[in-house]
Parts: sequence; C-alpha cells; structure tokens
Amino acid sequence: MRNIKLTIEYDGKRYLGWQRLGDSDRTIQEKIESILTQMTNEKIEIIGSGRTDAGTHARGQVANFKTASDLSPEKMLQFLNRYLPQDIVIKEVAEASERFHARYNATGKQYSYYVWNSPIPTVFERHRSFHCPQELDWDKMQAACEKFIGTHDFIGFSALKKTKKSTTRTIEELSLTREGDMLRFRFKGDGFLYKMVRIITGTILEIGAGTMDISAIDEIFTNQVRKAAGETVPSQGLFLDAVYYH
Amino acid sequence: MRNIKLTIEYDGKRYLGWQRLGDSDRTIQEKIESILTQMTNEKIEIIGSGRTDAGTHARGQVANFKTASDLSPEKMLQFLNRYLPQDIVIKEVAEASERFHARYNATGKQYSYYVWNSPIPTVFERHRSFHCPQELDWDKMQAACEKFIGTHDFIGFSALKKTKKSTTRTIEELSLTREGDMLRFRFKGDGFLYKMVRIITGTILEIGAGTMDISAIDEIFTNQVRKAAGETVPSQGLFLDAVYYH
Repeated sequence: MRNIKLTIEYDGKRYLGWQRLGDSDRTIQEKIESILTQMTNEKIEIIGSGRTDAGTHARGQVANFKTASDLSPEKMLQFLNRYLPQDIVIKEVAEASERFHARYNATGKQYSYYVWNSPIPTVFERHRSFHCPQELDWDKMQAACEKFIGTHDFIGFSALKKTKKSTTRTIEELSLTREGDMLRFRFKGDGFLYKMVRIITGTILEIGAGTMDISAIDEIFTNQVRKAAGETVPSQGLFLDAVYYH
Repeated sequence: MRNIKLTIEYDGKRYLGWQRLGDSDRTIQEKIESILTQMTNEKIEIIGSGRTDAGTHARGQVANFKTASDLSPEKMLQFLNRYLPQDIVIKEVAEASERFHARYNATGKQYSYYVWNSPIPTVFERHRSFHCPQELDWDKMQAACEKFIGTHDFIGFSALKKTKKSTTRTIEELSLTREGDMLRFRFKGDGFLYKMVRIITGTILEIGAGTMDISAIDEIFTNQVRKAAGETVPSQGLFLDAVYYH
C-alpha cells in the first residue's frame, strides 16, 4: 500500500469542522474522503493532523491516507481539485513513507487569528476575522503575548475538562502584528488544547481593551480556572497555517 | 438642503451592480437608498460616481445625496452601518458643498484587477480574482501595460457601440505587480469606458500567455475593432479602488 500525504487549504465557513460527523456531508474530512473514494474505487479514510472547529479555516492542514491506487500524485492533485467544492483546495499531494502518520508525527503547528480593529467594519474580511471596534492598548497586548511564550500548563486557557492527559504545551512564538486595521496574532507551538488559541486571543484583547489586568494571566496559570480568562473569540478569525514534521 | 458625500465599500458578489434596476432589491444603490430613506423619512436618491457591473467590488465608491435631515455625519455613519447588509459598508460620511456632484465632478478613478496565476486554485480569494492557470510571460505583460498608458481612443477596448460622445481617455498609470501567486493590475485614469478595464486586462493576459502578439494593441487603437482584443475577464476580479475629485 502507498501512503499519500495531502496539504489542504479550506474556507471553513460552510462546514461543521474538519472531523467526520455521522452521515453529515458538511465536514471537510467527509468531502475529501468521498472524492478520494470515487478516485480510487477503494473505501478511503484520511487521518488529519488534528481537528479544526466549525467555521475555522486552514491554509496548510495536513492529512494522510493509504491506497493501492497507482495514480501519480500529479493526477491525484488534478482529480481532487477538479471535483472538490471550490472552498476546499488540495495544495500538494506527495508520496510519504509507510510509517508517516499526520497526527502522531506532527511536531508542531502554526495558527493565526485575525482581528479587524476599527469602528468601521470590513466588507472583504468579514468572514475571516473578528470585528473588535474598541481601542486597544498596543503595548499592553505585546506584554500579554510574551507572558504566554514558553512551557506552561494551559488547562485554564482551554475548553477542556480536567483530564489525565498532559495539558502542558510549549508556545515558541506568539507575535502580534498590524497591517492597516487588521491585527494578526501568530501562534507557533508543539500543540494546542481545545479552543486554546481563541481563549488566549480573547484574553489578550480584554487586556488591550482594559477590562482585564495583565496579572490575570499568571493567576490563571496558577489557579487553572477557565472562567477567569477572556471570552472565546469566534472561530471565523482562526486559520491553521501549517503543521510541522521532522 | 444639505449635500452629503458617502465613501462606500462593497462586495459585489450578491448584486446586479451599482445602479438601481426597476424594483430589484439586488443593487447597491437600492440598498443604500432604502436605508437612507428609513433614516431621514425623506425619499432619498443617491448619485454614484459611476456604475459598477454585476459582481464588481468597490473599496472607495463615492456617492452624494441631498437631505433636510439634521443628523450629524457620525450618526448617519452609525445608522447606515447598523442597518446595511454586511457586504456594504459606509467608510465615510462627509458634508459636501452644495454643488458637489459625485459623477460630474469626478476627475479620475483607480481600479484594480486581480488574477490568481497558479495551477492550484485559491480558496480565500476565489470570489475576488480570476483564476488563470497558464504560465505568463512577465516581461511581455509589462511591455503591454506600457502600450496603454497615455491618451488614446479606447473604443476598440470597450464594449461600447460607436457613439457620438468622445471615447478618448487618458490612462495615467497601468502597473502590474505580483504578491505570491496573485497578480494585480492597477489602472489610474481620467475615466474608463464600459468594460474597458476587463478587456484591457484580458488582452494583456493573452499577450502574456502567447496567444496574442503585442503588436495587436497598436492595430486595435488604429482599426478600433473590439473583436481583435482579448476576452473580457470576469467581473469578480475587478475593484473600484478610489474616485478622485479636485
């Protein structure tokens, strides 16, 4: 059997998220699997690097699947992009080693979260950003970003219940940049807990807006109480940019 | 009566274009007029700087209207952006002089046309660009752009029938830039004929693809035959960026 690696871009707006959900045809995984099944005449299951939530976008989701097909990667790419809906595009099809597993082998991910920060809304980015009309303190937000960098137990910044699995993760990079009225929070790390990027972004925005003090971050790391952190910002501003492998 | 100037951004995807069409509620003009009529309790008609076609977008369309309302520009801006659909945003409301006329006083316009030039389609820009998968010759396209700059009779590069009105226009700037796989053609001039930007862009792309020779441009300026020029590229890649006034 061959093992094929896919790099995938999608607009999450119409979908319930990455992961297959019963019979629903409104998940990214189901859409891709159904076209792969047509293409190969085999029942294909794909393994994604991880789930993305309803409404979340991806520029570089990674998945793999096994097949006995002898189609070349180029032919697969053409077939997939011809029959997939326009809001899902396969950017790359590559031969992977037999043991490559898109989830278990992932060593890190990059996410971006976009915030439109102006009293005037944006027409063109309205489905791919969160509109925050308040004035935000740039220096406070930069200081807040730095607080998250490093290795911490992020349970208080996630929507997880207490679990036996480790909730310690390392954020290598959390940068905030601005282009015109658009803010971009860029997160790079070895893994992210459920809703962690959106809760951290919501927390930094509240610190920027002055409704939360920066000292709250250390307190939440200590007392691990989710309720003390900021609101979960909506999924439409979130992009999975890239998944890293050794 | 006050004379109010609006600067407007819109996503043209859902609309039949700028100009009101009978009873249709699928034009930008109708949408804005109906909210202005609610806001003022007067029957408001707005004058746009010019029409945009079905599917064409705007970042800086300009319009004006007369009203006896005493609402401040700030309140108007809030009201409009609250009640307009999300794909139309008023960026600015300003008091204009009594004689300001958005169409007659316009001295120039800037348009951009976006072309996604890669064999792999784009998910996120699919409604705001034209997908051209062929390889394009950059130098030939740059040379073609220069041919259009200056004062010419552009009738052969328009969808107009012969007319008594002048079809001579001046293009001050026609630049082609690239950011990743996205090409941007930027047109600045004193005015543009019907479909002129899209026909010139289509012609430059055919020259870049090698299916038309650059000498065709001078021939069309001379013989004024529309059929000799390139295809009209689709409206979804076109943006009205700005309208200029003295």
